[in-house]
Amino acid sequence: MDKLPSIEALTEAFLKLPSVGSRSASRIAYAVLEMKKEDVEAFANALTSAVNNISKCPKCGFYKEGEACPICDSENRDHSKVLVVSSYKDALAIENSKKYDGLYHILFGYLSASKGVYPEDLNIEPLLDRLNEGEVKEVILGTNPTIEGETTSLYIAKLLEGYDVSVTRLGFGLSVGSSLEYSDPLTLEKAFEGRRKL
Amino acid sequence: MDKLPSIEALTEAFLKLPSVGSRSASRIAYAVLEMKKEDVEAFANALTSAVNNISKCPKCGFYKEGEACPICDSENRDHSKVLVVSSYKDALAIENSKKYDGLYHILFGYLSASKGVYPEDLNIEPLLDRLNEGEVKEVILGTNPTIEGETTSLYIAKLLEGYDVSVTRLGFGLSVGSSLEYSDPLTLEKAFEGRRKL
Repeated sequence: MDKLPSIEALTEAFLKLPSVGSRSASRIAYAVLEMKKEDVEAFANALTSAVNNISKCPKCGFYKEGEACPICDSENRDHSKVLVVSSYKDALAIENSKKYDGLYHILFGYLSASKGVYPEDLNIEPLLDRLNEGEVKEVILGTNPTIEGETTSLYIAKLLEGYDVSVTRLGFGLSVGSSLEYSDPLTLEKAFEGRRKL
Repeated sequence: MDKLPSIEALTEAFLKLPSVGSRSASRIAYAVLEMKKEDVEAFANALTSAVNNISKCPKCGFYKEGEACPICDSENRDHSKVLVVSSYKDALAIENSKKYDGLYHILFGYLSASKGVYPEDLNIEPLLDRLNEGEVKEVILGTNPTIEGETTSLYIAKLLEGYDVSVTRLGFGLSVGSSLEYSDPLTLEKAFEGRRKL
């Protein structure tokens, strides 16, 4: 018996998700058929409204729903500090640790000659625009403690030399080769306390 | 920062899928935001068309897309045999093995006094209707070799006594590739009962 076309399409869709293999994708597709019709429709709506309502803040790259950025446009954040991270997930890990109350700036990648990622491929311009506004006093470089992360941080530190801001690097507590995304809150707190002037 | 409402809704939706925990659900929800808009819309469409186009065959319970059941309405199947299984997944496992070319009948559950599942809760009536049509010569009971599976098979075997069909049960014994050393006593007992002259 051939697979039903709709099940095939659904399996393909689930296969595009992270850490879903072909076996799980097929299992999940069949599970959807056993779900209540309202639940599946709510699921489909959740998908479309997520892509339609959520966009990246043009200033920092953080996801926002509607017009206001939950970070840049919040009065509860310290607008004199900007933490530069590589990905949204990194920013979220920091945010969930509740150890940081400043702004973020998401680069969406790392410099990497081997992968062909150059400065113009990263989200850097809006950071410079923000610094030109003069409110920021400190830029904290929060890239991963890997070779690519270090390279990226050094590049940005060099770029910011002409600006009247203090540039620091998250340092204490992060072990070399580890990933920000999976660091525990205490380690993240230590990293903030131990940040050093570059 | 509070979670964005659309991400919250999406995370909840993924949480309803089998073997997706809260950590994975959130990770998958963010991954969706990084997907191409067309891919996410295709995903949403796959969900709605699956629930709208796929239904259960009223005769056997197998999933069908459109009017025709891929099993009951296929001329390549042996319409004289019906394999009775508990779930669609069981039927699919048999189907994927390519070792069976007859029809299926899906009960959608097992008799279980402790769980309050009684004969009227199972999909039995259409099986009797089919037997009354007279084309079926053999009903193979393919419920799991568990107490509930055995009870269900015995109940159906008793129910079919008045019909002119041969009722058989899938054979029990050692599974191919398994080890005598680690087989449970019940399986060994069944293997002795089911021994054959070489």
